[in-house]
Amino acid sequence: MDQRRPVDVGILGATGMVGQQFIRLLSGHPWFRTAWLAASERSEGHGYAEVSSWRLGDPMPAGIATQKLEPCRPGLGPRLVFSALDAAAADTIEPAFAAAGHIVVSNARSFRMADDVPLLIPEVNADHLALIDVQRRLRGWKGAIITNPNCAVVVLAMALAPLRQFGIRSVLTTTLQAVSGAGYPGVPSFDIVGNVIPGIGGGEEDKIQSEPGKILGTLNGDRITPHPAVVSAHTTRVPVLDGHTMTVSVGFDREVSEEEVAQALTSFRGRPQELRLPSAPEKPLELFSDGFRPQPRLDVGLGNGMTVTVGRVRPCPVLGTRFVALGHNTVRGAAGAALLNAELLLADGWLRGD
Amino acid sequence: MDQRRPVDVGILGATGMVGQQFIRLLSGHPWFRTAWLAASERSEGHGYAEVSSWRLGDPMPAGIATQKLEPCRPGLGPRLVFSALDAAAADTIEPAFAAAGHIVVSNARSFRMADDVPLLIPEVNADHLALIDVQRRLRGWKGAIITNPNCAVVVLAMALAPLRQFGIRSVLTTTLQAVSGAGYPGVPSFDIVGNVIPGIGGGEEDKIQSEPGKILGTLNGDRITPHPAVVSAHTTRVPVLDGHTMTVSVGFDREVSEEEVAQALTSFRGRPQELRLPSAPEKPLELFSDGFRPQPRLDVGLGNGMTVTVGRVRPCPVLGTRFVALGHNTVRGAAGAALLNAELLLADGWLRGD
Amino acid sequence: MDQRRPVDVGILGATGMVGQQFIRLLSGHPWFRTAWLAASERSEGHGYAEVSSWRLGDPMPAGIATQKLEPCRPGLGPRLVFSALDAAAADTIEPAFAAAGHIVVSNARSFRMADDVPLLIPEVNADHLALIDVQRRLRGWKGAIITNPNCAVVVLAMALAPLRQFGIRSVLTTTLQAVSGAGYPGVPSFDIVGNVIPGIGGGEEDKIQSEPGKILGTLNGDRITPHPAVVSAHTTRVPVLDGHTMTVSVGFDREVSEEEVAQALTSFRGRPQELRLPSAPEKPLELFSDGFRPQPRLDVGLGNGMTVTVGRVRPCPVLGTRFVALGHNTVRGAAGAALLNAELLLADGWLRGD
Amino acid sequence: MDQRRPVDVGILGATGMVGQQFIRLLSGHPWFRTAWLAASERSEGHGYAEVSSWRLGDPMPAGIATQKLEPCRPGLGPRLVFSALDAAAADTIEPAFAAAGHIVVSNARSFRMADDVPLLIPEVNADHLALIDVQRRLRGWKGAIITNPNCAVVVLAMALAPLRQFGIRSVLTTTLQAVSGAGYPGVPSFDIVGNVIPGIGGGEEDKIQSEPGKILGTLNGDRITPHPAVVSAHTTRVPVLDGHTMTVSVGFDREVSEEEVAQALTSFRGRPQELRLPSAPEKPLELFSDGFRPQPRLDVGLGNGMTVTVGRVRPCPVLGTRFVALGHNTVRGAAGAALLNAELLLADGWLRGD
Repeated sequence: MDQRRPVDVGILGATGMVGQQFIRLLSGHPWFRTAWLAASERSEGHGYAEVSSWRLGDPMPAGIATQKLEPCRPGLGPRLVFSALDAAAADTIEPAFAAAGHIVVSNARSFRMADDVPLLIPEVNADHLALIDVQRRLRGWKGAIITNPNCAVVVLAMALAPLRQFGIRSVLTTTLQAVSGAGYPGVPSFDIVGNVIPGIGGGEEDKIQSEPGKILGTLNGDRITPHPAVVSAHTTRVPVLDGHTMTVSVGFDREVSEEEVAQALTSFRGRPQELRLPSAPEKPLELFSDGFRPQPRLDVGLGNGMTVTVGRVRPCPVLGTRFVALGHNTVRGAAGAALLNAELLLADGWLRGD
Repeated sequence: MDQRRPVDVGILGATGMVGQQFIRLLSGHPWFRTAWLAASERSEGHGYAEVSSWRLGDPMPAGIATQKLEPCRPGLGPRLVFSALDAAAADTIEPAFAAAGHIVVSNARSFRMADDVPLLIPEVNADHLALIDVQRRLRGWKGAIITNPNCAVVVLAMALAPLRQFGIRSVLTTTLQAVSGAGYPGVPSFDIVGNVIPGIGGGEEDKIQSEPGKILGTLNGDRITPHPAVVSAHTTRVPVLDGHTMTVSVGFDREVSEEEVAQALTSFRGRPQELRLPSAPEKPLELFSDGFRPQPRLDVGLGNGMTVTVGRVRPCPVLGTRFVALGHNTVRGAAGAALLNAELLLADGWLRGD
Repeated sequence: MDQRRPVDVGILGATGMVGQQFIRLLSGHPWFRTAWLAASERSEGHGYAEVSSWRLGDPMPAGIATQKLEPCRPGLGPRLVFSALDAAAADTIEPAFAAAGHIVVSNARSFRMADDVPLLIPEVNADHLALIDVQRRLRGWKGAIITNPNCAVVVLAMALAPLRQFGIRSVLTTTLQAVSGAGYPGVPSFDIVGNVIPGIGGGEEDKIQSEPGKILGTLNGDRITPHPAVVSAHTTRVPVLDGHTMTVSVGFDREVSEEEVAQALTSFRGRPQELRLPSAPEKPLELFSDGFRPQPRLDVGLGNGMTVTVGRVRPCPVLGTRFVALGHNTVRGAAGAALLNAELLLADGWLRGD
Repeated sequence: MDQRRPVDVGILGATGMVGQQFIRLLSGHPWFRTAWLAASERSEGHGYAEVSSWRLGDPMPAGIATQKLEPCRPGLGPRLVFSALDAAAADTIEPAFAAAGHIVVSNARSFRMADDVPLLIPEVNADHLALIDVQRRLRGWKGAIITNPNCAVVVLAMALAPLRQFGIRSVLTTTLQAVSGAGYPGVPSFDIVGNVIPGIGGGEEDKIQSEPGKILGTLNGDRITPHPAVVSAHTTRVPVLDGHTMTVSVGFDREVSEEEVAQALTSFRGRPQELRLPSAPEKPLELFSDGFRPQPRLDVGLGNGMTVTVGRVRPCPVLGTRFVALGHNTVRGAAGAALLNAELLLADGWLRGD
């Protein structure tokens, strides 16, 4: 990768929580430069600091405060745009941008399950990028839409990916999800201080039950054959700031030992590690032997929030194997996921001009 | 039940968290009177308020503060004693009391899995009290030991009891357990504020996997044939004060509809409700239709902490049926459970003199 | 007080957090009956359960769920109405109701500092009700507006009231305020989990600095001469559900001993205690000797939330005396305060028909 | 500063929370190298990882896990030792080390108020190091003891230091202290989740009232004349992990404007900034203009935890000026403070061999 000049990128929906994470992660990025910030019409012409309420611990990167916001209008802005839009806006804005030639690297759920749209985790299914050609052929777009999974799904799918070799039949997971997953203002404090809410709403459980099949599936010609594993998800919200924790039980086609599982998780690597992509953690999965880890407060930042941590691998009397997995929901589960997707697109030549 | 005079009771381990709950729940009890408080030798002769650090929101009942503590010596104290001892102490003290003629109603784990000791939930297995005769015969005791389950097991076993009719084969649960379950001082705040710990330790998962079989089992002559359901438990600790929440997936022998499950849960009643025992909630199980309940902060106090609440009954793609259950771990899961056990013993005539 | 028939009352702004507290506290009230619920035009004709999201731990009282909401239109509804409106709505709706003959017992801040409106704490300044006559004379109203103080001010003013005898010159307080004080949805959990926000906004500090002067002031003819004490308030928000805690330092005209302060606080009683009003706590102030009390989680419910608790009375090297005070912000600081006001109005004959 | 070779340092009490912070902060330090770890006799000969339960988010630095623990015996270990001992141990161990020629840079409270021991904040009173000569003369020691203040006092004293020019007469502060200030296991979670404890115990308020006088005092010959400001401190514990927040009201000899205060705080610099000590933050004090900052979760890490943040500077109706201050209690308030002290000792030539 000989990156002479940084590639200009834009952000759709730059003022929300995920938009802010994009800005933070792009600051000082070796390949990309935040050149264009877009939000709703109302914000047009205002400086970023005027219309956005910065919520992150790290201070706003230099130069962003006074950068002018533009409307989410196709044709404006650089070829590569990150989308931090909510689904309602993404439904129409993302296709319009793709039609106009933009490469839309989206965190929205709108097109995740579309047959011709990659639902990408670069370590897991980098080959699914070939769908871009299908997408362009079918839709007549010059650009494209590439998506990353739901914030809880990334954690689950990454932990399952190296276990595909054992023949995954069934997966039963309970999530303990952080409040940042609900955006901002999100969960009222009166509802969650000293409490647990045993459901997330918004179709969260459906996403966790459907997205992994596509992600872990196999590209056959123009289509992805979904992985046949059946997934059941109980979701809960807990008073944690960042980091979705999941208990996971997995049933395999055959008996699999604790050591086989541990070995598969530990040795897992993917294209981002091969290519040494800037946001790629050295190890996509980190396995703890301590019986009380991973914990969100201690472990969510590993690999700059891009490592998924796993612990407590042991037999499950009902399904076969069980463990705990944890990932940073607004980094590996949102802005960092999209950024890694964009890095793979660039490294694999998908951003070369038409 | 014509209770002319209150029955005197004692408390072994009266100064800890569970001991305090016993004192609180016995205050103003229509049948029992706290007549004797016992703790370690060190406390002997001191007033209760001197050696105990009262941790409950409700104030210490009148008269307790100056009550003198006695040592845990068999023969002292009333015939009926509640045990709030930890397992190490209970191992030797409880049998000594039973041998000396005391009826020990214990919250300790020491004898829960002994073949001849009832592991009692009065709504679920009141008939297991017949083991007392076996116990006396085998051990030559004039007294007896009766135990209640682990604080998470009570919640699970009560929710499963009415589902036995459908043929339970397998159960997979993840617990989100309150900090009060770890006693006092228990979990350091530095470990749990804004965090989740994905394991409880102390054999918690083993207890949840083994105790339900005995509780839901069938008394055949002198022995209990355990229920054949296989149970898998992931345990976690969450920053909640009181109330263990559990996600539960259940596999049955046959297809069971959501309505059948809901109907079974809602109509569930047991001996305590028939006998109108003082601590018995009107309904042992309360079913919520709201998709975000039960929640520990809102629902843990239902039925004075003796009701187990259930919600989100729906199909599980992997096992068959799933739901969320919640119970008050230091009331229904500890002191309140033992108290209800003692009420059943009295009502069923087990406390009549030798 | 021979209350043969309950008096019908209405609630303006019945669907919000304070409105819900009114409904909860009025349920089973010996003197009042919730006969009329009003909210915004949008809600008109809908059942209460349809348009309100019940947030309280106690279940919604029987009969409320299907009660139809009416618009906040003067002339509709009973003579006595409680106002849980926000200030913007109260600005115009409350005077319109008072003009139309309603007695408006308001929790809103709109008219608290108006010269002719009682800012009432029945234990402290019951005689200020005489302002109702001034109000009617000046404004030509048949009805009236009576207000209760800001939720933090009640705590402070009640703790200061019995100390007026020593000549209060200056008061410096820091508040640690619960999230329920911000209403619902109120404070986003992402802002407050494991955090402290060192400011409340909305003029909170100004209210704490100005309202006590009026409350502790003296009625002279048609006007209140404010108490001359200077008050300084630092406000903070903490991750507590209910209960505003305040550290308070007080400077007096003369040297005052710890014992004098303790004695004044402990012996404090007022009109509600004399009249045995239904919501009056036996003791308006409860003094703790424990060096770590009062604490919101343990002590906020004392006297059904109507008792203000005080602790750690000791000398202040800078001002003279210092202590900690705590009160339930949505009960004694809002709905319970207004209810006690209405009870005093009834007991003192202000609700007799024209 | 031409540091060719790192200086070996030891840590007394290396296994506790503060000891762990020393190890973390010394890892990769440009001047110092952790060469010797000491703890109680029990730990002697064991590897660090065996006897210490690592509690910090950052992983244990490489090489520490297997480093053998030694007893706290004078003569062993390097000349420069950091003390993370508790006061009871420090009372006897620190003087023994100083007598044996060690330079003890201590975080314990044992000798803070001794007349001949520097109570050092390098930005505030670097000249107090001259007391080392007094100490050696009076006590006949070859080594010395240098202390840093209590974790809350550092925050207060640093915020007050630049205001000395206006003539500070009185200071009234309320602290909202993090749970990490209580060490580990420290505050039980059952006591603090969703709660506030209005007192710290252990003489915390006395320390806050007495230590600033010495720190802000003037060295006159062999003695420090304490600063005459009278300080009053209310302490509280809040469910925050790291960071003590303080509201502070200050009375001056003369009227001082908000701008003068802000200007004094912003321009404040000290010896560590002049000398560019490795742990010195660029700005010892950072002033926020936002009305809701500083907040512990967002701002405690500024300057690697060595910056004290201040906000909400405004007039105080009672004393004159008020503001909010925040500092990292286990970094700037403990291990980082001691480390900066050691850096000043080295830079100023106090570590040169005898």
